[in-house]
Amino acid sequence: MTDFGETDAYVAAMKGTILEICPNATLIDISHNITQFNIVQAAFILLQASKYFPEHSIHLVVVDPGVGTDRQRIMVQGERCYYVGPDNGVLSLAIQREGIKKMVQITATQFRRSNISATFEGRDIFAPAAAHLAKGVSIDSFGPAVDQITQLSIPPPHVSTNSISGEIIHIDGFGNIITNICSSRDQEFLKVGQEYLTTINHMLKKMKYVKSYGYVSPGELVIIKGSTNHIEVSINQGNAQKLFNAVMGDPVEIAVK
Amino acid sequence: MTDFGETDAYVAAMKGTILEICPNATLIDISHNITQFNIVQAAFILLQASKYFPEHSIHLVVVDPGVGTDRQRIMVQGERCYYVGPDNGVLSLAIQREGIKKMVQITATQFRRSNISATFEGRDIFAPAAAHLAKGVSIDSFGPAVDQITQLSIPPPHVSTNSISGEIIHIDGFGNIITNICSSRDQEFLKVGQEYLTTINHMLKKMKYVKSYGYVSPGELVIIKGSTNHIEVSINQGNAQKLFNAVMGDPVEIAVK
Amino acid sequence: MTDFGETDAYVAAMKGTILEICPNATLIDISHNITQFNIVQAAFILLQASKYFPEHSIHLVVVDPGVGTDRQRIMVQGERCYYVGPDNGVLSLAIQREGIKKMVQITATQFRRSNISATFEGRDIFAPAAAHLAKGVSIDSFGPAVDQITQLSIPPPHVSTNSISGEIIHIDGFGNIITNICSSRDQEFLKVGQEYLTTINHMLKKMKYVKSYGYVSPGELVIIKGSTNHIEVSINQGNAQKLFNAVMGDPVEIAVK
Repeated sequence: MTDFGETDAYVAAMKGTILEICPNATLIDISHNITQFNIVQAAFILLQASKYFPEHSIHLVVVDPGVGTDRQRIMVQGERCYYVGPDNGVLSLAIQREGIKKMVQITATQFRRSNISATFEGRDIFAPAAAHLAKGVSIDSFGPAVDQITQLSIPPPHVSTNSISGEIIHIDGFGNIITNICSSRDQEFLKVGQEYLTTINHMLKKMKYVKSYGYVSPGELVIIKGSTNHIEVSINQGNAQKLFNAVMGDPVEIAVK
Repeated sequence: MTDFGETDAYVAAMKGTILEICPNATLIDISHNITQFNIVQAAFILLQASKYFPEHSIHLVVVDPGVGTDRQRIMVQGERCYYVGPDNGVLSLAIQREGIKKMVQITATQFRRSNISATFEGRDIFAPAAAHLAKGVSIDSFGPAVDQITQLSIPPPHVSTNSISGEIIHIDGFGNIITNICSSRDQEFLKVGQEYLTTINHMLKKMKYVKSYGYVSPGELVIIKGSTNHIEVSINQGNAQKLFNAVMGDPVEIAVK
Repeated sequence: MTDFGETDAYVAAMKGTILEICPNATLIDISHNITQFNIVQAAFILLQASKYFPEHSIHLVVVDPGVGTDRQRIMVQGERCYYVGPDNGVLSLAIQREGIKKMVQITATQFRRSNISATFEGRDIFAPAAAHLAKGVSIDSFGPAVDQITQLSIPPPHVSTNSISGEIIHIDGFGNIITNICSSRDQEFLKVGQEYLTTINHMLKKMKYVKSYGYVSPGELVIIKGSTNHIEVSINQGNAQKLFNAVMGDPVEIAVK
């Protein structure tokens, strides 16, 4: 996963580098279209995707506005998967959810390219590290253990008697507005088939909580429980983000009618 | 093939799911940039692509505006390949062309994720079904046989003495206008090197029928037989769609001068 | 690498064709988002990427405005990798850098599809050639040796006492402006930490030469040595291309203050 886009040679250079070290690696793209330098977006998409990968998968994430400075580079062994990337929070949501077995700094020079570009550590440090890990090098060989890494945190929503207030943590390519309302306790409030008053970006709209988009007519607003258990506001076959002109971080209130 | 785009975690979640079940699967993307909910576009692109895949390939297609409702989910054994997706017509053009050996509904619960999201059957039902099929599970194990599935149909063009009238069934990324004029009988009308009067979206233009774009100067209009044998209207190194402001479904008439 | 985009069936048809001939091929995308017909952009991206691929990799490049005409089709054995594509210069920068062992025309009819579309040789001629090569067919079997192929050339910059003048040879997805100033001799001029006057598109701006973006504040202009050793003008976490409204070919002058 990177924010490099799919036009330039950068992603391919990383893949070539990996295959040179570990020719049998199976390479899967999560996304290379992360908004440039958007660590929070990348962290959330990694949170969504990583759960569905086979055990021992290695997630290599390069969204790295601090490349070439002294921010650390880390490798994390989670309960199921491994994670490799800069220590800027981009890995934090996924590894918080998964649980951490071991974390190290990537400092060993024998597992990197001999000429390091100061602007492309994805190719020269992170990809070689991930490839050597895939090939069987032990996580302990990459550098010293670390206790603390940079954390992002998704704030919890506020629940009151008649409403729940949270915020937008992601907007997907369909314009679905994904909120931080995700625990079962938060969601007790919502009854399938009932109508609620939802306020996003100062616009109040009535909408039902239903099981899936197709339970309302095309063009209608709905509240649904999305595929990662977060509450979403969507329009069946439409784009809720455009209707509300919503952006990440906007508050979302859902109230009993 | 999906309409999920390449930014979100959705495609990766499907691929992770497949590899967990069938680690040796070779995964090839046809497209994840299908216009959202555009079943006809997806069906045509699948028709174009599927023919060139190895025998026994499994085409997993999730363009599924009815996700979570009671539309069926199907698995089809064609003469060469397998097809897995919602029963909304998206598979129909490819399997009509290929010929059908067997069709079943996907109902067996042992070949799906234990927690099914009502909004993401691609990950929870279709991907696991395709992966188990790839791993060797017999098509009969997935559910009861079905006789009838939802069909799209490409209308045939009308041939008269001096002209042929069809419609636009696809516009590709180069702006090439691809018509439903595709049988050899329809194309007898056209002689290589001859000039015709072509009307699209009320604009009439003279253009030659040639073998390939490069037979005319850059910027010139041509009629060619495209790579899937459909007659196309193109501009050499230009964009015919923009010139005609054409959209899918627009009538196309080609007349003798 | 193609200019076909990622929406249509074209890339998938090529991959299916390759896998039918050589089922164990590992397929890596460099880019399918090359600007349509832009041979120079494709040549430069190939130059950047190919260096990082394992020895004996086969680079299949179809950016081919002359498809269906009598331009040659070539296969090149470089010092490390193989290259397959049209003889229009698209391969030339990469193979100049790598060094050439052997070049042949692709003429043998047994290694192509039996029905050749005049508009899609990528699928019908180039992909089968690359796949047969991957499968072990000797380069000599594809056709007669050729001595000369179409060359692109990157002009050298001009160095004077107080300044160096070159041109823009690539602009990446981050808006980084990549110049033809790439040899160590050209770069002697530049001292890390020093400020220079840079003129692009008639705009003169002061900027430091630093080791990486992160050495200046977000929004600040910098000169850096990019990841392929070309001098770049960038904005830390910003877009230099937009600031200068720069395009490929624009002159770039860097002068001592």
